[in-house]
Amino acid sequence: MAENKQDLGFGIDTKRKTKRLINPDGSFNVKKKGNHFDIRDTYLALILAPWLNFLIFILVSLIAINMLFTCISILIGTENIIGITAENHLNEFLETLYFSFQTFTTVGYGQLAPTGNLMSTVAALESMTGLVSFAVVTGLIYGRFSRPSTRLLYSNNFLIAPYKEGMSLQFRIANSRMSTLLELDANVNLQITEHINGKYHRNYYPLKLELNKITFFPLNWTIVHKIDDKSPLFNLKESEILNKDLELLILIKGFDDTFGQVVHSRYSYTEDDLVWNAKFKIPYETIENGDVIFNINQIHDFDKLNS
Amino acid sequence: MAENKQDLGFGIDTKRKTKRLINPDGSFNVKKKGNHFDIRDTYLALILAPWLNFLIFILVSLIAINMLFTCISILIGTENIIGITAENHLNEFLETLYFSFQTFTTVGYGQLAPTGNLMSTVAALESMTGLVSFAVVTGLIYGRFSRPSTRLLYSNNFLIAPYKEGMSLQFRIANSRMSTLLELDANVNLQITEHINGKYHRNYYPLKLELNKITFFPLNWTIVHKIDDKSPLFNLKESEILNKDLELLILIKGFDDTFGQVVHSRYSYTEDDLVWNAKFKIPYETIENGDVIFNINQIHDFDKLNS
Amino acid sequence: MAENKQDLGFGIDTKRKTKRLINPDGSFNVKKKGNHFDIRDTYLALILAPWLNFLIFILVSLIAINMLFTCISILIGTENIIGITAENHLNEFLETLYFSFQTFTTVGYGQLAPTGNLMSTVAALESMTGLVSFAVVTGLIYGRFSRPSTRLLYSNNFLIAPYKEGMSLQFRIANSRMSTLLELDANVNLQITEHINGKYHRNYYPLKLELNKITFFPLNWTIVHKIDDKSPLFNLKESEILNKDLELLILIKGFDDTFGQVVHSRYSYTEDDLVWNAKFKIPYETIENGDVIFNINQIHDFDKLNS
Amino acid sequence: MAENKQDLGFGIDTKRKTKRLINPDGSFNVKKKGNHFDIRDTYLALILAPWLNFLIFILVSLIAINMLFTCISILIGTENIIGITAENHLNEFLETLYFSFQTFTTVGYGQLAPTGNLMSTVAALESMTGLVSFAVVTGLIYGRFSRPSTRLLYSNNFLIAPYKEGMSLQFRIANSRMSTLLELDANVNLQITEHINGKYHRNYYPLKLELNKITFFPLNWTIVHKIDDKSPLFNLKESEILNKDLELLILIKGFDDTFGQVVHSRYSYTEDDLVWNAKFKIPYETIENGDVIFNINQIHDFDKLNS
Repeated sequence: MAENKQDLGFGIDTKRKTKRLINPDGSFNVKKKGNHFDIRDTYLALILAPWLNFLIFILVSLIAINMLFTCISILIGTENIIGITAENHLNEFLETLYFSFQTFTTVGYGQLAPTGNLMSTVAALESMTGLVSFAVVTGLIYGRFSRPSTRLLYSNNFLIAPYKEGMSLQFRIANSRMSTLLELDANVNLQITEHINGKYHRNYYPLKLELNKITFFPLNWTIVHKIDDKSPLFNLKESEILNKDLELLILIKGFDDTFGQVVHSRYSYTEDDLVWNAKFKIPYETIENGDVIFNINQIHDFDKLNS
Repeated sequence: MAENKQDLGFGIDTKRKTKRLINPDGSFNVKKKGNHFDIRDTYLALILAPWLNFLIFILVSLIAINMLFTCISILIGTENIIGITAENHLNEFLETLYFSFQTFTTVGYGQLAPTGNLMSTVAALESMTGLVSFAVVTGLIYGRFSRPSTRLLYSNNFLIAPYKEGMSLQFRIANSRMSTLLELDANVNLQITEHINGKYHRNYYPLKLELNKITFFPLNWTIVHKIDDKSPLFNLKESEILNKDLELLILIKGFDDTFGQVVHSRYSYTEDDLVWNAKFKIPYETIENGDVIFNINQIHDFDKLNS
Repeated sequence: MAENKQDLGFGIDTKRKTKRLINPDGSFNVKKKGNHFDIRDTYLALILAPWLNFLIFILVSLIAINMLFTCISILIGTENIIGITAENHLNEFLETLYFSFQTFTTVGYGQLAPTGNLMSTVAALESMTGLVSFAVVTGLIYGRFSRPSTRLLYSNNFLIAPYKEGMSLQFRIANSRMSTLLELDANVNLQITEHINGKYHRNYYPLKLELNKITFFPLNWTIVHKIDDKSPLFNLKESEILNKDLELLILIKGFDDTFGQVVHSRYSYTEDDLVWNAKFKIPYETIENGDVIFNINQIHDFDKLNS
Repeated sequence: MAENKQDLGFGIDTKRKTKRLINPDGSFNVKKKGNHFDIRDTYLALILAPWLNFLIFILVSLIAINMLFTCISILIGTENIIGITAENHLNEFLETLYFSFQTFTTVGYGQLAPTGNLMSTVAALESMTGLVSFAVVTGLIYGRFSRPSTRLLYSNNFLIAPYKEGMSLQFRIANSRMSTLLELDANVNLQITEHINGKYHRNYYPLKLELNKITFFPLNWTIVHKIDDKSPLFNLKESEILNKDLELLILIKGFDDTFGQVVHSRYSYTEDDLVWNAKFKIPYETIENGDVIFNINQIHDFDKLNS
């Protein structure tokens, strides 16, 4: 068997059996410890968080800033806010909070307004804080918008099937977004873990592809590795493959023409995703008017072959 | 005839005759089905929509949010809005709507203003919603601005004409924007569809170009494929070409120096765009002061040659 | 003499003598005609305009929008604006204009405020127009900020000087910005125009460089073309070069690590910039504490050699 | 000894001993003089400044603009500001300043409001200046957010250790951010300064790496230079290396998949960072559930070997 132990960045030896290296969502099964806090990590976390969490965080932060200014205003004395008519402490707090919001958002109806030097100065600072805060929110929202986002759909299974007087390993991808991807480039490696002397040893084999680049990508792309005598899968039977602890590590690189960005997609298959002796169905058809209809959910579909 | 069946991503076999693969605007004749909704697709749609549609969508959305807050305010009771003097339900609704807009946009004249805890809280939330909404609008507008946009002009026709003791296929491009493009790279493939046994079979042939890169691009660029014995067009007569179902698939890649972005342009010609035995006219001239005047609309112009 | 007539994108033959191809500021001496108007060209023009022109355009546009809303408000009737006390048409116009500005900027003091359905609706639209306008201004300002901007300083002259048992052509560049440039790549071509049979014919020769890439760029970079027997300048004397109509066409590509952008710089020298038999002075020195002091203005300095 | 004097951009000869070329934070020990001021350098400085300095600069600038408008308003006459009740010059100035802030931030409570043509016009201009200023602040904040930022952690030391029947030079890196880096590329050069005839002469040697690219980077990456007979370190003893004035110049290039940006990291080691005859410890382990726990602070750890 041809062998090529080039490390892909995941390490070679471990003492225990490890989870798959790449999850189906493209993330790695590594938990990092010891990072030092940095303000840019906050930015990163806010960019990567789901929209709901992001909006809640923003809302809570804005309310917290207003609470702070409310407390400062109460310390200065609410007799310096025109229009406050509260008769008890709770109402005084609430009315001061409304004044704070009206200042912070610069809505400034005027029923509540500052008077006296200290309160006027605090109100001026608060309205500027408000505008800078919304500048930050604008930056965060655009940061979330402009982040590269490809969503490639991978066929549920990879097939091993007859191909040109031999066998091949195949899987398919499609672009599940409206954006236009161009100049795709596929990089597929096979990882096989061996259990020797109580240690788990990973071998990495780059798989040679029939075509590792494609110029346009309006339909699906079937990525084919011909299993010839240089392939690590050469002459293996279905049962032999299923008994191995293997993982297909896939990196697809492309150019998102809609946003002018280089994008990457990661995916992996394990031996559990193998279908032996099957052929993918064509997931698109030309209708009468000459249009091509492509149903991306059909990239998973295959026909079992009689052996 | 030299043959190279490399798939470009459009597929090889179809049962029906298909429309051209690339439209003159660079889009593909593929209708995708089965996409799952994702919030980022909304963003993409808003970025790609024409400006008029975009502005109408924004206006309608902003009005809808205001309507929602108006309804909430009416449920709370308009006696909590200072300055509402309505004598009937319609006027009450309208005055509450104006209050809502004055809060949402933070204009806050003060003739209309909230009072009471519930209304003051809703008004605070509405003014924050307003500012976040305009942060989103700012993000969308900048997203639209910053999207890469090249507009290459392609000559209306491609020519087949004598060239250096032989024949060549030629077409021309020019930059129809003010931006500066550099380091252009042309990738031209010829697709010829054969109708065999009731199936349509596509062959793709990469066309070798005399020059497939150009460093500067202040004028037009004439892209030339010499029809030698390795060309799929070798020894074909005009009538033979016109009888074929063919398409020139063009991808031009370049660097937009004004925005620092890699940009792509797609185009295609079909056999209907062929002009036989003609030569392009020079579309620029040097005037007396030494300036070069380039009329980009003349890149279409050619002279028929006597054969 | 070795010859290589590869067109760089400037064309080969002209009937009249043309100005230099690349100006010292990197622009081309080409005037384009026939462009069709497109909204994105407006964006481009606003991004490329000097700051003063940009700010005047923004100010004039904002005033024009306010004028429009002022006229609409006057048509509706200024009795619908609370607080207008004008006694003549000019004052009525001016007070309505102030109301318009207070609405458009959402400052909304409240001395002037809308009343009645029509005026309240127009005011709501105007305040939204105001916020969208400032969203556009924000987008334009960030577009101007984020545009790639390198400013390489080129030595005033190029030298032809002895170098390793032969002669070489040399010029120098330095980064005149605070940003960090990495991985620079130089592409130098020599253009020599010949006047034959009343036509001007341009020959382009790529110049082979001693080093066409450099990894780091904290100091200056001297770009050296060795004049060997494959060079178009081989065995030419000073007077022969000065009599030619030539231009050195320079494209420097690099990576701006501060902004994460690929950047380009264009420049050209003509025969008038030649200094014969001179050597560049070193423009930096190590001071006592081990720091290197680099005076970028000294990259122009050279010593004449005795011949 | 194999030699390769390719200049990396730092220059070759100096009269005095120079500090290290690259500091541990990636900056260069060069002080540039003679830069001409340009508005874009201000932008650059504001993008590169620490957050605290940035916020103070913004605050001071906004206050300065308000001071200017306050002075203009006082020149026009504060009798044109409704609501000013000041009895002395200081209070008049302060109340006018509050009016200015309420206008600039568009909070516009209305207790203070302009009257008369001149003051109303100035107030309109000030509120527009305010909005444009916050547009600039938004642009600056997003510019700071979107700047590429990688933070690679380098092992404190580089090791020279036995490796495959020979010796090797090794150091390690890890990603200390949450972002995903892909396709890393390492470029390592050794600089050795010789002191000859009162001049300091730098030799640069590119070091050949066992692996100079890595596809994924979830863990650490140990960069290995095998010291064979083509290495400039071949057959050197520990004491010989420690006596040299050398510096390992490192440039790591990668793709930040979270932001879609190409990023670079620079670092250098000097002879003081050498550890002789040691081996790095593995900084990650697989725990029982199959997860890999990677403690990035352990990339510094090594074991001394018995020689």
